[in-house]
Amino acid sequence: MASNAYDTDLARNPANHQPLTPLVFLERAARVHPDHLAVVHGPLRRTYRDFHIRAKKLASALAKRGIGRGDTVSVMLANTPAMLECHYGVPMTGAVLNTLNTRLDAAIIAFSLDHAEARVVIVDREFSRVMKPALDAAKVKPLVVDYDDPEFAGPGERIGALDYEDFVAEGSEDFARAHPGDEWDAISLNYTSGTTGNPKGVVYHHRGASLLAVGNVVNCAMGKHPVYLWTLPMFHCNGWCFPWSISVVAGTHVCLRQVRASLMYDLMAAHGVTHLCGAPIVMSTLLNATDAERKPLAGTVQFFTAAAPPPESVLVAMKEAGFEVTHLYGLTETYGPSVINDWHRDWDALAVDRWGALKARQGVPYVGLDGLAVKDPATMEDLPADGTAMGEVMFRGNVVMKGYLKNKRATDEAFAGGWFHSGDLGVMHPDGYVQLKDRAKDIIISGGENISSIEVEDALYKHPAVAAVAVVAKPDEKWGETPCAFVELREGRTASPEDLIAWCRDRLAHFKCPRHVVFTEIPKTSTGKIQKYKLREMAREA
Amino acid sequence: MASNAYDTDLARNPANHQPLTPLVFLERAARVHPDHLAVVHGPLRRTYRDFHIRAKKLASALAKRGIGRGDTVSVMLANTPAMLECHYGVPMTGAVLNTLNTRLDAAIIAFSLDHAEARVVIVDREFSRVMKPALDAAKVKPLVVDYDDPEFAGPGERIGALDYEDFVAEGSEDFARAHPGDEWDAISLNYTSGTTGNPKGVVYHHRGASLLAVGNVVNCAMGKHPVYLWTLPMFHCNGWCFPWSISVVAGTHVCLRQVRASLMYDLMAAHGVTHLCGAPIVMSTLLNATDAERKPLAGTVQFFTAAAPPPESVLVAMKEAGFEVTHLYGLTETYGPSVINDWHRDWDALAVDRWGALKARQGVPYVGLDGLAVKDPATMEDLPADGTAMGEVMFRGNVVMKGYLKNKRATDEAFAGGWFHSGDLGVMHPDGYVQLKDRAKDIIISGGENISSIEVEDALYKHPAVAAVAVVAKPDEKWGETPCAFVELREGRTASPEDLIAWCRDRLAHFKCPRHVVFTEIPKTSTGKIQKYKLREMAREA
Repeated sequence: MASNAYDTDLARNPANHQPLTPLVFLERAARVHPDHLAVVHGPLRRTYRDFHIRAKKLASALAKRGIGRGDTVSVMLANTPAMLECHYGVPMTGAVLNTLNTRLDAAIIAFSLDHAEARVVIVDREFSRVMKPALDAAKVKPLVVDYDDPEFAGPGERIGALDYEDFVAEGSEDFARAHPGDEWDAISLNYTSGTTGNPKGVVYHHRGASLLAVGNVVNCAMGKHPVYLWTLPMFHCNGWCFPWSISVVAGTHVCLRQVRASLMYDLMAAHGVTHLCGAPIVMSTLLNATDAERKPLAGTVQFFTAAAPPPESVLVAMKEAGFEVTHLYGLTETYGPSVINDWHRDWDALAVDRWGALKARQGVPYVGLDGLAVKDPATMEDLPADGTAMGEVMFRGNVVMKGYLKNKRATDEAFAGGWFHSGDLGVMHPDGYVQLKDRAKDIIISGGENISSIEVEDALYKHPAVAAVAVVAKPDEKWGETPCAFVELREGRTASPEDLIAWCRDRLAHFKCPRHVVFTEIPKTSTGKIQKYKLREMAREA
Repeated sequence: MASNAYDTDLARNPANHQPLTPLVFLERAARVHPDHLAVVHGPLRRTYRDFHIRAKKLASALAKRGIGRGDTVSVMLANTPAMLECHYGVPMTGAVLNTLNTRLDAAIIAFSLDHAEARVVIVDREFSRVMKPALDAAKVKPLVVDYDDPEFAGPGERIGALDYEDFVAEGSEDFARAHPGDEWDAISLNYTSGTTGNPKGVVYHHRGASLLAVGNVVNCAMGKHPVYLWTLPMFHCNGWCFPWSISVVAGTHVCLRQVRASLMYDLMAAHGVTHLCGAPIVMSTLLNATDAERKPLAGTVQFFTAAAPPPESVLVAMKEAGFEVTHLYGLTETYGPSVINDWHRDWDALAVDRWGALKARQGVPYVGLDGLAVKDPATMEDLPADGTAMGEVMFRGNVVMKGYLKNKRATDEAFAGGWFHSGDLGVMHPDGYVQLKDRAKDIIISGGENISSIEVEDALYKHPAVAAVAVVAKPDEKWGETPCAFVELREGRTASPEDLIAWCRDRLAHFKCPRHVVFTEIPKTSTGKIQKYKLREMAREA
């Protein structure tokens, strides 16, 4: 484009252009609210002054050991103060934080450590049992640091060269960060829990982390000084970027090693928790708490959930229990949530079935995400916004990953045509709200017709005896595939396969109804996602 | 810096990198809340759908007339729907919005039009009296478009080639913007009301406008769907970027041509206004309203003020009238506010004098501003944060202007040493809060000692008879300069010059006390700032 007077002598300089990074949020909180409570963990209390000093000491200790720009620091930590410190201290050095899923097996962890070329590994003693063989199997030989959390009394040996507290003590609080020099620099690395093949390493950059951190504050309408309970694992998409968001508004992190009902209620009551996030399993845990476990809440607590849209009944029960639930959607590749079911005030007046239908939609782009579309991946054309034309949900904007580490092919595929291909199938409603119909690989093709497994699941969820359900394809000689339903029944309720199939026939086209129903516990990942690939194996034998 | 795996095959592409721009906020609001009320003006009501369509039509009409990247569109408009539309429609074409101060004279406007190389000028009929001679005097011959606001019944001829509504009607709502291609592209041009020499053209870019727009939402803790009353002129720093902020949270703009007490109360009551901004004069207008003019407010209204820190008495009166006042600080060069008196909860419990002293501080960086420091401009060293060492207040970050248009020397001076030099003198308190002591050019140097005019004003403000005061330097043969005070007395109160000088001597070092006191109406700019240069002229003769 031709240049003009506005392009002349008006270049970037340090006064008017600084790299976007979430690191400034902690620095600001420590300057503005140094005495505000930043971290609670058991009896431990840390102010923003202390939190910032510890993050700087960690950074300094890492730098003294030679860690710098582009190095990987892998951590195997629960939702603890150390995990929060790593979210700031590691990127302050220019290094990249790789949070490991605490429920993976040694082989996958060894793969990740090698792929990431981990130079330092910080391990919570609880997870040393799996980390020891992982480190033995890995080709890399990182510095191993033990984190021995006083709140963890269970078994587990120390396997490292030194203790986390000693390591932090090596550092100086005068550490002055020089990174990121560029907002496009990597800040973190999150491996997808690949259901087939090796996991892919999703790289986040400082720009996106900063924008999503502020995006959480704006989209979730978080005021000043929220109190945030850590029910979402921080190893999952960097806790949806909330370790950085909370600093934006100088809030309090309430740490939590385990999602147990009594502990959650105790902490909510003791600290006046205002916000928490989690998979549907966290809602179930809260709702299934006994009267003895429950504590009165100070006010309405905001609950942000992702994964499957919560059924009506759960939303109603949550409301009665004092929680306002907002449904978010995103993928590891989009920094966690980047889509929100942005609720219209007047929808509250709707009849309950219409209300439930609107609540079940994934929604619209976050403030911060530029584009969200349902496209035909072959032509990259938008599909009609009619609520029925099913296509691939695609994202575009600054809160989409930098790409997959050392995997150009997967990166190019994911970004083909200038949009991020989510692999999720959905529809666009006439009002611009997206609703997921299935994962691309979860769609069932029967007699040439597409069947959304979610549609079948929705029908079964309405049956009074059904507690949980997952529907997958079962190979079929005649039809190619047919739907197979795996069902958990409510305690004290009964239903036969025939009952459930008949129930579906009253509600769905016949070809969409399951041919097989299996009563079993449904396998889930550590983050509460149903493992459909395991169910597909089970369906072959059903 | 050496490159590494995180730099390899992980480049920017349209899927993961889009230019930051506030234009996306209107697009999102129109998609997500199309039926929400966006604009109120007299009987006019426009939804976000309508607002977006009209902005696109304006953009399309401009583009059809050849307006594109780097062209300047100057507007002389009150706080009207057209002014809001220009904040989106003009930059959608890649052009730059130049909002003219409606109270300037023809000669300065002619200078600005020529300097900006204005290609289109949109003129509210009310301001044609000054715009006609300005356009006659200017060398540029832009397309002139009349805006004949139905809410304006006063005198003023049409002076343009066509009417704004006809112009908008030329455009198509199918306009698809291709700008900005780069977030560093200019979005607007604001001339400073230079007190000496020609005004300087402050250039804003899309990146900064986007970040400050979101910054307002975060720093002012604005929830979803605020109702915003336009008491701050939109020609002033683009209304502190609130024309863009309100779209972030899908709020309602309540337009206002004139700051009159009865109208403000009527609109606040009728529309449930939640937020407004303005100079101290707006607070006085609200507080001096008669009982007949006042209307009950639905809830506490958030009031953001800049310029001089509000005196204790005003804050207390505002609180009683139902307003919560937050004190912001910034300059045209920092997109309006970029510093906030971020209030600590526990300060509310302090004794009233300590409370007032804390309220009088300008404060800490906005979330969005990276650096705020008090430096010695000669050495660029930070001064001690002791609340007394006076230095120049300096800014650094993404919400600092691109620079001054066609004025490399002034740009280089302003950014010397990698910080924006504000020209304001202040101190850094030990807790990191900045307090202004004076404009560099307002400092009084008496017998080689610096006297802060603000310090003398603060002492006089505490006198019960003083309604308003401004202190400037008066040339003095012996001392070089001495303080001269201009005072407005409260209605029904009296005080002699000697009384006030004695009052000061009880409170200040003697060399700081005014030698002369003049009772007069204090001249102010259109934005409510005291015109000290005029007072300095008057002081020479006092």
